[in-house]
Amino acid sequence: MAHGAPARFDTSVYAARLARATQLTAAAGLDALVVGTGPDLRYLTGVRADTFERLTALLIPADGAPYLVTARLELASLRDSAVPELGIEIRDWVDGDDPYALALTGLGPQARLAVSDALPALHLIPFAERVSPPVGLATDVLRELRMIKDEAELAALRAAGAAIDRVHARMGEWLRPGRTEAAVAADITAAILAEGHTEAAFVIVGSGPNGADPHHEQSNRVILQEDIVVIDIGGPVGVGYNSDCTRTYCFAEPAPEIAEAYAVLERAQAASVAAARPGVTAESVDAAGRAVLAEAGLADYFIHRTGHGIGLSVHEEPYIVAGNTDVLRAGMAFSVEPGVYLPGRWGARIEDIVILTDDGAEPVNSRPHGLTVLAGR
Amino acid sequence: MAHGAPARFDTSVYAARLARATQLTAAAGLDALVVGTGPDLRYLTGVRADTFERLTALLIPADGAPYLVTARLELASLRDSAVPELGIEIRDWVDGDDPYALALTGLGPQARLAVSDALPALHLIPFAERVSPPVGLATDVLRELRMIKDEAELAALRAAGAAIDRVHARMGEWLRPGRTEAAVAADITAAILAEGHTEAAFVIVGSGPNGADPHHEQSNRVILQEDIVVIDIGGPVGVGYNSDCTRTYCFAEPAPEIAEAYAVLERAQAASVAAARPGVTAESVDAAGRAVLAEAGLADYFIHRTGHGIGLSVHEEPYIVAGNTDVLRAGMAFSVEPGVYLPGRWGARIEDIVILTDDGAEPVNSRPHGLTVLAGR
Repeated sequence: MAHGAPARFDTSVYAARLARATQLTAAAGLDALVVGTGPDLRYLTGVRADTFERLTALLIPADGAPYLVTARLELASLRDSAVPELGIEIRDWVDGDDPYALALTGLGPQARLAVSDALPALHLIPFAERVSPPVGLATDVLRELRMIKDEAELAALRAAGAAIDRVHARMGEWLRPGRTEAAVAADITAAILAEGHTEAAFVIVGSGPNGADPHHEQSNRVILQEDIVVIDIGGPVGVGYNSDCTRTYCFAEPAPEIAEAYAVLERAQAASVAAARPGVTAESVDAAGRAVLAEAGLADYFIHRTGHGIGLSVHEEPYIVAGNTDVLRAGMAFSVEPGVYLPGRWGARIEDIVILTDDGAEPVNSRPHGLTVLAGR
Repeated sequence: MAHGAPARFDTSVYAARLARATQLTAAAGLDALVVGTGPDLRYLTGVRADTFERLTALLIPADGAPYLVTARLELASLRDSAVPELGIEIRDWVDGDDPYALALTGLGPQARLAVSDALPALHLIPFAERVSPPVGLATDVLRELRMIKDEAELAALRAAGAAIDRVHARMGEWLRPGRTEAAVAADITAAILAEGHTEAAFVIVGSGPNGADPHHEQSNRVILQEDIVVIDIGGPVGVGYNSDCTRTYCFAEPAPEIAEAYAVLERAQAASVAAARPGVTAESVDAAGRAVLAEAGLADYFIHRTGHGIGLSVHEEPYIVAGNTDVLRAGMAFSVEPGVYLPGRWGARIEDIVILTDDGAEPVNSRPHGLTVLAGR
């Protein structure tokens, strides 16, 4: 972690988010939200703790003030968060206590609870056993907040986009035939940190047939002169908002069939970006690019959704996928990243993060979209 | 990740674990276990995937063969696992499908399910909504398996212990007054990797008052000549079994009150190790060391449990804590790590991983337990 980087926004930002979360909890007919460690807790309080077996959770009652349940030995980890300045009540516990009972004191066995996405079964089931109504997901409450980014968040996402663009701009320094994917990835990792990220959250170097696996990470495969190479990289910047950008590279003019397929992919990515604006459904953005690929007979080679929301999490709502009829709104931020994957042969992907403005989509990434030819051997 | 390292055990190991898990599922009166990504899935199949929003889960029916539900684009990540050789049925899905319905096909709405600890609410709640009986935790089934390590696992833990001992042995190369905790931590991180770990999972450098916070990680604080410094480090080795070892350092003969308290801590740690053997409760091991500290009036400065099990997870069962009346058995592996923490002043901790043999506890760490005086300024 980069020390000295701003760890969070001003306390007033969290106060406003918590007030809104309390309103939304009441509006949803819930008695309380239970927000475990993870991006939701960080969003609401700036708490970056990442506990597993010891419960840390923020309780947000519909009627009353939020309070935080945490193990006593985690108290120091709250120091840099907004919790002290917000004056949030702390209910601390020590090994051997029942933290679930502590969390539910004042709520009772009829409480209607909803929990954060990331709360593990280890903690969710003890809560579920202590209340009669079925426990729900807080996503529907918190997504309202987290999906629509405020100006400070959008600025953070733009800064993250510029930082990862600087890494892609330097790709020729490291990516060349004769090196292993892992060696290239190590250099990219260092550059991601050098260009202002606090962590290299993911570094995909997919060369040749490995590029045809969208979730390939990296390997000891030696990159060949004739390879197409997918580079999908990103991580958090500043207060924790993430970059995520994919470009595809090669070392010589590609074969005509590859160049043609890539040109279709480029048009598909542009079509999805052009389709993205407030008032349309998430799935329509997916459909727009997919139609371009389908027209060229490439639909079967695009085997994942078009994109995912991004913010404190690399993947969050809204998901740009068939079946998601959620209507997009200004302030949302998500990836547009179609790909074509020819199993065992090659793959390509183009990914930008876009921010929805009042009348369209503003990409935060600005590197050229074409298949970039780097110096080979 | 270190490429070329053995990623998993022989397929026969996983076949035996799955067969035993199936028996235990039936014996528990369950219809199926649902094992999401994380250490339980890795334990059972060697699958190291770490997905969040897209469900990957192994279903282990009490009656029938296990099957794996996963997104189609994750299929390649199964290649290096034991899944192909085990011939486990794959039920793959694409974005837009209902993976929960797919997982439950053949089980029906009356299925009694238990899920792995780490399964996030995001996936647990959709399962819970689709079956009538309350969903339980699979811990009680899987802990039987995971708590008792076989010979291959014990060998892996001994190798991990030796690897982290080599790092502690070199501590004088990096830890000295005038450097920041973060700079020392960076050097330790490199040494953890160089000494055979695939990852530096945690690097705690707690100097002076920071040592009094058991969960302090590292900071830009400059280490002082008069500091006591807690170094708690570890990570996975080879197939993924973890090291975890704490030693406490200083740069000059400590003040008498510190030396005295440290001597008590050393006796407390030895007392807990001596108390650890098959047939006693987990809490009795905690109590043995705590009694030594209490006798010297230091009990209030030991603010956490004595230890945690270790294996593919850094923290797993058995937890060595007051209230845990589970009886220890041969083949268990856990940390024994009492500490004393004087808020705002200094802290110390001594931690070894021990393996329970038929008649006692075998530490896998062998560095001296005393307060080690390194060269200062």
